[in-house]
Amino acid sequence: MGVLILHLLYVVAISAEAMTAALAAGRRDMDWVGVCLLSAVTALGGGSVRDVLLGHHPLIWIVHPEYLVLTAVSALVTIAVARVIHHLRRLFLFLDAVGLVLFTILGCNVAMEMDMPVIVIVVAGMISGCVGGVLRDILCNEIPLLFRSELYASVSVVTGCLYVLGLHFGLPHDPVMIAATALGLTMRLMALRFNWQMPKFVYQRDLH
Amino acid sequence: MGVLILHLLYVVAISAEAMTAALAAGRRDMDWVGVCLLSAVTALGGGSVRDVLLGHHPLIWIVHPEYLVLTAVSALVTIAVARVIHHLRRLFLFLDAVGLVLFTILGCNVAMEMDMPVIVIVVAGMISGCVGGVLRDILCNEIPLLFRSELYASVSVVTGCLYVLGLHFGLPHDPVMIAATALGLTMRLMALRFNWQMPKFVYQRDLH
Amino acid sequence: MGVLILHLLYVVAISAEAMTAALAAGRRDMDWVGVCLLSAVTALGGGSVRDVLLGHHPLIWIVHPEYLVLTAVSALVTIAVARVIHHLRRLFLFLDAVGLVLFTILGCNVAMEMDMPVIVIVVAGMISGCVGGVLRDILCNEIPLLFRSELYASVSVVTGCLYVLGLHFGLPHDPVMIAATALGLTMRLMALRFNWQMPKFVYQRDLH
Repeated sequence: MGVLILHLLYVVAISAEAMTAALAAGRRDMDWVGVCLLSAVTALGGGSVRDVLLGHHPLIWIVHPEYLVLTAVSALVTIAVARVIHHLRRLFLFLDAVGLVLFTILGCNVAMEMDMPVIVIVVAGMISGCVGGVLRDILCNEIPLLFRSELYASVSVVTGCLYVLGLHFGLPHDPVMIAATALGLTMRLMALRFNWQMPKFVYQRDLH
Repeated sequence: MGVLILHLLYVVAISAEAMTAALAAGRRDMDWVGVCLLSAVTALGGGSVRDVLLGHHPLIWIVHPEYLVLTAVSALVTIAVARVIHHLRRLFLFLDAVGLVLFTILGCNVAMEMDMPVIVIVVAGMISGCVGGVLRDILCNEIPLLFRSELYASVSVVTGCLYVLGLHFGLPHDPVMIAATALGLTMRLMALRFNWQMPKFVYQRDLH
Repeated sequence: MGVLILHLLYVVAISAEAMTAALAAGRRDMDWVGVCLLSAVTALGGGSVRDVLLGHHPLIWIVHPEYLVLTAVSALVTIAVARVIHHLRRLFLFLDAVGLVLFTILGCNVAMEMDMPVIVIVVAGMISGCVGGVLRDILCNEIPLLFRSELYASVSVVTGCLYVLGLHFGLPHDPVMIAATALGLTMRLMALRFNWQMPKFVYQRDLH
């Protein structure tokens, strides 16, 4: 039952990531194929980079190529309903936050099953949660949003730390996962609502 | 005989990719070393990304380091003959199209030998054919052309699908390969000639 | 003793790379988390890309996650002392040059232990030495400096070639390494001092 819900949430989160990427593509006049590609890279890129760095083969979309189809279909649906999509703005931001937290937990899990050190587990979670968006921003020729705003990476690190610490202290898996997810989600939504930001580092001189 | 021609075409295609990358480098005032590096990444990057994602080691340029030399030499030749190269514009675009189709077929082959699912085989072909150009555009600080124009990715997908379907239905390898190559090449050249484009997705609102 | 010094130098070089990346982040108004991430990617990205391409697992920061902590701490220290850091400009450029040469040697070593062909060994050294800075520039949305100036890649190739050739001719390891390091370092510092540049390739026509 728990596994089924998790799987369902994962599918929803991948679709949501793909759809937000499609909207980003639309702001840069990409063609339909470009939109599908950008969606696939954004939704599946974080997990792929994590697996390549950890040496964890085969990648998820190689075992489940239907996820590739899912991201492409999500992108095409986004194109079809673009005119009304801004009414769903809040829903999208919520699903995007769910995706961030969920991808983080799943990323931690992969590293945990490979018996990685604690720091690597948390980093693996962060890579899963955040790198998809970084790839999207690089392909759109922008400085990744991740580096500039919105506690995105911080939410991922906090979620991962809670999850790892809870399990480390022998607490049962499901409650720990639900607590970490709930707290990460709350933090992200409050960051969006109150426009929380990390302090910025501004340095104007040139080293060269 | 067939293998020899294929190998020869591959070498020609790598050189052509390297030379078009060198011209792109020249438009951004890169120095000679930068030109060679960009050429190598463009010509060999697609296959490398495919192999890293599939977990298919060792990479082609590790087994055949002479390809690294070939791309660097192609880049230097381009610098030497740059003044007359625009007379060869049509030849370049033709060789670039040959490269796209050929890299696609070879990429499908690698995934096929690893017994990957059909969708992954087609995606592997597309990564081989298109990602080199994406890396070139990222390193030149531009939105990848692939996402915006010219049916580049579509040609690759169509070529890959034809090839995979033909083999799937038990047709003999060489005719299937020749047919897929010819059709992909025709599609690409007609796209160039008649300026075919995919419809674009334009969306101006900001999600945030 | 020699190993201890090499290890110490490596730690110093990683910190120096992380700190120069932090300064680059400061020029783009990144937040504190962004600064830490950019520092980690810059300092450890070259070695990671090399290992992923060579299929050399596990990566260094997976075996030694303390290096991840080191880069983040270096980034935070940079933020704390940013106001006085321009007085240390020369020291930074020197440490950055040490890092370039040292990462190159270590990269060559990894490929050598895997019995790679000579060209691949030199390329592995160059990837280790240079790719971190390329990733930094891509994430900062700039054309990588590597492609445009300062003999950075050339220094790496020369260092790697000297090292590989010396060992190939049966000379003892430590003197060869010290000689290659010294020559690479001298070349880089003279390039900085006298503003040496590779000739540039300028080509204005458009292929399309």
